Amino acid sequence: MRCEVAFSHREVPLRSEDLAEGKRGEIRAVVIDVLRATTTVVAALAAGCEALYPLREVEEARELAARLREAHGKDRVLLGGEKGGRPIPGFDLGNSPREYTPGRVEGRHVVLTTTNGTQTIAAASGVGAGEVLLASFANLRAAACHLARGEGPFLIACSGRKGGYSEEDAVAAGLLVEAAAGSSPLELGDSGRAALAVARAYEGDLGHLLRTCQWGRYLAGLGLEEDLAFCARRDWTEVVPTLKEGAIRPS
Amino acid sequence: MRCEVAFSHREVPLRSEDLAEGKRGEIRAVVIDVLRATTTVVAALAAGCEALYPLREVEEARELAARLREAHGKDRVLLGGEKGGRPIPGFDLGNSPREYTPGRVEGRHVVLTTTNGTQTIAAASGVGAGEVLLASFANLRAAACHLARGEGPFLIACSGRKGGYSEEDAVAAGLLVEAAAGSSPLELGDSGRAALAVARAYEGDLGHLLRTCQWGRYLAGLGLEEDLAFCARRDWTEVVPTLKEGAIRPS
Repeated sequence: MRCEVAFSHREVPLRSEDLAEGKRGEIRAVVIDVLRATTTVVAALAAGCEALYPLREVEEARELAARLREAHGKDRVLLGGEKGGRPIPGFDLGNSPREYTPGRVEGRHVVLTTTNGTQTIAAASGVGAGEVLLASFANLRAAACHLARGEGPFLIACSGRKGGYSEEDAVAAGLLVEAAAGSSPLELGDSGRAALAVARAYEGDLGHLLRTCQWGRYLAGLGLEEDLAFCARRDWTEVVPTLKEGAIRPS
Repeated sequence: MRCEVAFSHREVPLRSEDLAEGKRGEIRAVVIDVLRATTTVVAALAAGCEALYPLREVEEARELAARLREAHGKDRVLLGGEKGGRPIPGFDLGNSPREYTPGRVEGRHVVLTTTNGTQTIAAASGVGAGEVLLASFANLRAAACHLARGEGPFLIACSGRKGGYSEEDAVAAGLLVEAAAGSSPLELGDSGRAALAVARAYEGDLGHLLRTCQWGRYLAGLGLEEDLAFCARRDWTEVVPTLKEGAIRPS
């Protein structure tokens, strides 16, 4: 099974071309944004959220929320997300996975906009991936099992930071590659091998990783240390979020 | 001393911002394109080439060569480079470092255009780096010594492949970080630590690295295996090319 890793949303088109060169056929994509979008989505679905709708722009999000409120009722639709790690005025929820508790989100629809994560989801959809999954440290093992059960090459799309490489997403990609390779042999390109090397250099202390990586230090500076601890928890849920027609639900 | 690594020319503006955040002051940049532009430049200067002029476009290169020929005489100016790894019709030299022998280039000026390397040189100049050096496996130790003798933060700008990560440049960046850290302690960001992890995963077999990385396999498919062997030779020269006012000469 062939696998490529994109270290940021900008690399998604390039790596999907690399995959298509090796073997024609439907590409699957796994989007990672450990700090914090994909951790938040996994947490929300694990808490019983009905569906999440990832959008890049704040105004788009407000418009979709208004339409969904007409369809589902005002109380069943929430607006969530962040810009530059900070809450958005007028939104019901931020981008902290700790806010997405059953009390807040169970049975509800959440329109979500974040700095990086939703851009990467859009990039993965944009290259025509037949299946778009979301992963974070919270569901790595479950995501790897899901990939191993399916067929065809897959692309791991890291969100990165400001359009470039970020350590926390690369480590998650490497751990996902390692877990998926346990089920069936993987054919890796340059960046897949790099992700493995980076993950192995970490020896499993994900809490330390998130406190020392550049985006983690930025979030800690905003007082979000507890989010870092939450995002470092590994494999505590079997939920594998899947994007279909603009909505993210459990697979 | 602070150091950041850009994995492709696209990341150069982002990483130079990261450097500027940490400490105001003049940034130095080291451009790496192991396969093959910076290896070629190092080889040319080691062979006594007078100066090289890196340009992104073939037509720009032809125009500059015409002007230089008026100034220095027809026989003292050569056109060199490649597009997609292949020679350019009408050019005197390709982008194989093995072509840049004393017999061909000693005392001569070379206008050079390549797919990736010249883009990265332009990106490094574009962020206002006060000094732009070039490195490859051929001069890693010398480049590290040069950096350690100077002052201020530096950016290692990998050329990468198609605007994204490439293994051979990341390994060279990691080895350069390791060598520079031997002289004075370095403060690294996410990508600097990744470059180190990737370099350490290689355990020194650079020939194997260049035969198995994605761009190396592409070049081997064009029959350029001997170039790969040449580019894998480490620390055989003390030449540290420096870009000043559009011309690359030994420091």
